[in-house]
Amino acid sequence: MSSLAGTPLTAVPFTAVKFTDRFWAPRLEINRTVTLPCNFKACEETGRIGNFEVAAGLKPGEFQGIYFNDSDVYKVIEGAAYTLALRPDSKLDATLDGLIAKIAAAQQPDGYLNTYFTLVEPDKRWTDLPVKHELYCAGHLFEAAVAHYQATGKRNLLDVAIRLADHIDGVFGDDRLVGVPGHEEIELALVKLAEATAEERYFKLAQWFIDRRGQSDREYCQDHIPVRDQTEVVGHAVRAMYLYCGVADVARRTADEALRAMLDRVWRDLTRRKLYVTGGLGPSAHNEGFTSAYDLPNETAYAETCAAIGLALWSHRLALLYGRREYADMLEQVLYNGLLSGVSLSGDRFFYINPLASRGEQHRRPWFDCACCPTNVVRFLPQVGGMMYATSPASEATGQAEACPGLWVNLYAASEAAVKLEGVDVGLIQETDYPGFGAIRLIVNPSRAATFDLHLRIPAWCEGAMAKVNDESVDPTPDATGYLRLRREWRKGDTIRLNLPMTPQRIAANPNVTADVGRVALRRGPLVYCLEAADHGGSVRDLALPRDALLEARMETGLLGGVVVLRARGLRRAPTDWAETLYRPVGADAPASLTAVPYLAWDNRGPGEMVVWIPETPALAELRPAPSGASEGKANS
Amino acid sequence: MSSLAGTPLTAVPFTAVKFTDRFWAPRLEINRTVTLPCNFKACEETGRIGNFEVAAGLKPGEFQGIYFNDSDVYKVIEGAAYTLALRPDSKLDATLDGLIAKIAAAQQPDGYLNTYFTLVEPDKRWTDLPVKHELYCAGHLFEAAVAHYQATGKRNLLDVAIRLADHIDGVFGDDRLVGVPGHEEIELALVKLAEATAEERYFKLAQWFIDRRGQSDREYCQDHIPVRDQTEVVGHAVRAMYLYCGVADVARRTADEALRAMLDRVWRDLTRRKLYVTGGLGPSAHNEGFTSAYDLPNETAYAETCAAIGLALWSHRLALLYGRREYADMLEQVLYNGLLSGVSLSGDRFFYINPLASRGEQHRRPWFDCACCPTNVVRFLPQVGGMMYATSPASEATGQAEACPGLWVNLYAASEAAVKLEGVDVGLIQETDYPGFGAIRLIVNPSRAATFDLHLRIPAWCEGAMAKVNDESVDPTPDATGYLRLRREWRKGDTIRLNLPMTPQRIAANPNVTADVGRVALRRGPLVYCLEAADHGGSVRDLALPRDALLEARMETGLLGGVVVLRARGLRRAPTDWAETLYRPVGADAPASLTAVPYLAWDNRGPGEMVVWIPETPALAELRPAPSGASEGKANS
Repeated sequence: MSSLAGTPLTAVPFTAVKFTDRFWAPRLEINRTVTLPCNFKACEETGRIGNFEVAAGLKPGEFQGIYFNDSDVYKVIEGAAYTLALRPDSKLDATLDGLIAKIAAAQQPDGYLNTYFTLVEPDKRWTDLPVKHELYCAGHLFEAAVAHYQATGKRNLLDVAIRLADHIDGVFGDDRLVGVPGHEEIELALVKLAEATAEERYFKLAQWFIDRRGQSDREYCQDHIPVRDQTEVVGHAVRAMYLYCGVADVARRTADEALRAMLDRVWRDLTRRKLYVTGGLGPSAHNEGFTSAYDLPNETAYAETCAAIGLALWSHRLALLYGRREYADMLEQVLYNGLLSGVSLSGDRFFYINPLASRGEQHRRPWFDCACCPTNVVRFLPQVGGMMYATSPASEATGQAEACPGLWVNLYAASEAAVKLEGVDVGLIQETDYPGFGAIRLIVNPSRAATFDLHLRIPAWCEGAMAKVNDESVDPTPDATGYLRLRREWRKGDTIRLNLPMTPQRIAANPNVTADVGRVALRRGPLVYCLEAADHGGSVRDLALPRDALLEARMETGLLGGVVVLRARGLRRAPTDWAETLYRPVGADAPASLTAVPYLAWDNRGPGEMVVWIPETPALAELRPAPSGASEGKANS
Repeated sequence: MSSLAGTPLTAVPFTAVKFTDRFWAPRLEINRTVTLPCNFKACEETGRIGNFEVAAGLKPGEFQGIYFNDSDVYKVIEGAAYTLALRPDSKLDATLDGLIAKIAAAQQPDGYLNTYFTLVEPDKRWTDLPVKHELYCAGHLFEAAVAHYQATGKRNLLDVAIRLADHIDGVFGDDRLVGVPGHEEIELALVKLAEATAEERYFKLAQWFIDRRGQSDREYCQDHIPVRDQTEVVGHAVRAMYLYCGVADVARRTADEALRAMLDRVWRDLTRRKLYVTGGLGPSAHNEGFTSAYDLPNETAYAETCAAIGLALWSHRLALLYGRREYADMLEQVLYNGLLSGVSLSGDRFFYINPLASRGEQHRRPWFDCACCPTNVVRFLPQVGGMMYATSPASEATGQAEACPGLWVNLYAASEAAVKLEGVDVGLIQETDYPGFGAIRLIVNPSRAATFDLHLRIPAWCEGAMAKVNDESVDPTPDATGYLRLRREWRKGDTIRLNLPMTPQRIAANPNVTADVGRVALRRGPLVYCLEAADHGGSVRDLALPRDALLEARMETGLLGGVVVLRARGLRRAPTDWAETLYRPVGADAPASLTAVPYLAWDNRGPGEMVVWIPETPALAELRPAPSGASEGKANS
């Protein structure tokens, strides 16, 4: 899966995109007004912020919590900074400055910063890289610092990050300490810091951490073989995703074909063999990660929210690196399903684990001792706007075609954007009810008439796309990249109408996925659906969907914030009591009305069973009196 | 599930039953002529017999193999003794005497006998009861000795057993060594020895070993709580079965209601929640045993052959203890499926593990380093005749009805039997092609006219049983025991015709068994069926059975020794290449002819895939052009 375009695409920053829709705009507002404050509050109440004050000598006390708790504070700051970037807020600005002052005060004179080690094991710095998360915490500090600097222009946190980065750069090296983090994160963060500061040393250090992996036998943290030799996604899922992000960041900026080849191999392994239909990943609680090919149990799926976020970040990087639909499709798949399932509609409760079937025992919780997921949600969501568009230079971005600048549309949502494309300011307005419906109006407003390629992603899930430019039909067939390329001299007000029919689909899994054999998942547009107890009298595990049942899509504005549900005439299998029976002859099924809701919205109506993969049954028409079906060739005499 | 009859039934010994059928008679002959010699040969070649010679000082050498290898030799002797009992064989008799001489020579002056400890850890006797299997090996010696004594009347092995039993009785006790075996077996064996020798001390010792369990935390060997408090089948499956056999043996001879209550609880837990449809049990390789309720994966099913044998032995004991159909039904279920699958039709290859689905990688092998299964098969099969009939005294055996002696028919097979029933010799002739067909003629030949109850098991799987006595129809409805009770003055030549229709059935599993959801198993009479690669062009994992497909039963005399196959018009799902696809919209299926063969006979035609649980699909009639099935309530505009 090598690149068609030699030059990677460049993302249009999230600050240039404003959602005006009913899907993302409310979610970002809830993230700002609910999720962010409750994350701050939890960090305060659990001593995560206090750890900095104690380490700084600002107050007495002991280290509280887990040794990687600093990272949670950094991630909340990162999320707050993005929020500030989207919407000025002097109170939040001041809050951040106060918090940053505590962090800066906790930094040691030599630049070292980690409250756990400073307070608990001051003599043990950098001695347990595989387990303790010093480099991981540092990475999250760097990401927060870059976000804060870019949002506010202030260097107060950036300077802390630089001091720590310089310290790390002084500690690690081939002639100094050789070692790699047990939990990757610093690699991608160093690349960000390098770009924000134009300091090449940080990029080199990121490369070094990637190049030095593979000297141990720790498959759990992708340290079992050198990165360039890795062929399968293994170990802890979040760590794997963060590593691949860092590798993609390095590959993007170098001619390192071996890194790209490795990314292609692990991408293929993940997406062809080890991924839930929700985009969830890492099936096992045992290692919070990957197991063997096709081992995708539903009820015990781990599918950590952070892993989904990691996959979204990685998919976006590859979408930019390669300019191919597959990666943006993946981004969409995980975003609208296994990632958003991680946070409640109310914004104050979180899933750490995202199963694809439940007996009703899993529920989102306000916080976790290991709080990586809530703090990842709060920093991820404001970035989504930055994943919608990208640009490519005139040089060679479109492969075969004549050189021409490109504007790429990866995601669809009602929004307004301001894109800079080789000297032209291009305003973009999307009018759509996506992901509820697939009709999209895209209005292009260049500051002056300009010729460029508009690349519209035609999702692989879509059959029968239609496109018009200024009411003239155009061939909707995508090119080899999977994008529909429209080249013309664009003028203010030019309007593209794109229709991506969202016919409800039954999805089957590869027969090697034993958990899903005989079952189908329902998908409509980018959304994967599930059956919830709330719509089915309390139980869904015995419901089944006949192959011939019509799937009717209907917008329910009052349900779960407004969702399109799928309705079908289904069956409730063997509705009698099985309690004392393990096996028995197949019985007649009872009719049942099925209502499927988007998976991302499950568990927002109280406890109850849930299934994504629904057993398929005989066609309804066949269930007349009682199951026929037995004859004997040679009778018993 | 308490007893209706106060007095347990008494089994008619296997020596009183002679198979004349095409199912058991050839199997017993192959067991005698193939399985027994190859077991002896393997025991010789692997040093198992040599260990006794070395321990006896008869030849130089070291202990070979695993510390419980003595037990294999004892089990083969037990099997050989049963064979001798069924058919005199002076050469085999002499072989056994020679082998017994070696065993006797290896016995230590104080009665101790275990070649591993004598040769390897002479100072460590009885110091590692949870792991090392001294008491387990002793139990198998006792069983072999009783079998040999009863078959030949010779005391050469019995005296060895008595000396060891007396030694153990002297070592263990509340004021001596308190401990219990990690692997149960000695309990049931001591009861056998007690009966054969009329020595009450051995029975007391069996009781003591049961009463002393529960002082550790070892759930693996059912030692985690006192036996009478146990409620679930846990741990190693073979150990559990052997324990329950011993408990049943003690419960049968005492008024210990707490033991019966415990048996009832674990029986219920096993048969309602933790049993494969084949009668296989113990799903996990991890502990060779039980996991959680409804955790019954097919491909990774452990379902050890020895566990199936253990369940058959336990079921038979409960069938005698309670006189209820449920237990004999269970005996039949495990016997004809998950037990016999453990040995090839040729008699010289064995399964240790009996999965319910295979990718073609499992095959029977001639022997195992841990050879418990082959040696268990060889000693179990000759006993089957002893499970067919039982008698009950006139006292109270039939519960509500007036006192009358009872003759119980538990299993059906063409055979001749000589039963002693309260002073009357009753000859019984069964004429039938069972389990091929369900028509049975039972001719009763009492030595004089005699009134007794004939109890005929009407299997729970059977619908529409019919019965005639001397061509007069009788009501086939079973009484509360599940047996059809026929009381009359029986005269020589009285003939019962019983028809147990073997309509092929689709079996569903409790929906909690996630591995089987959307799937059916096929059963006809007592036989569970499977699909094998050999009948389906090499692959069966993508085959499916429409709910409306007729199941046609047909005797194939040339196939697998003569079996009834089930044929149906089925489907091959999504026959295109999935290799690079994990999920995709449901596709159209292709027609396929399905041929199911009895599970017990699988893997007798070379390597290949196999499934017991077959995915169910829509009715064939529905698969006309392409799957319809999608409409959109509110169109995309």
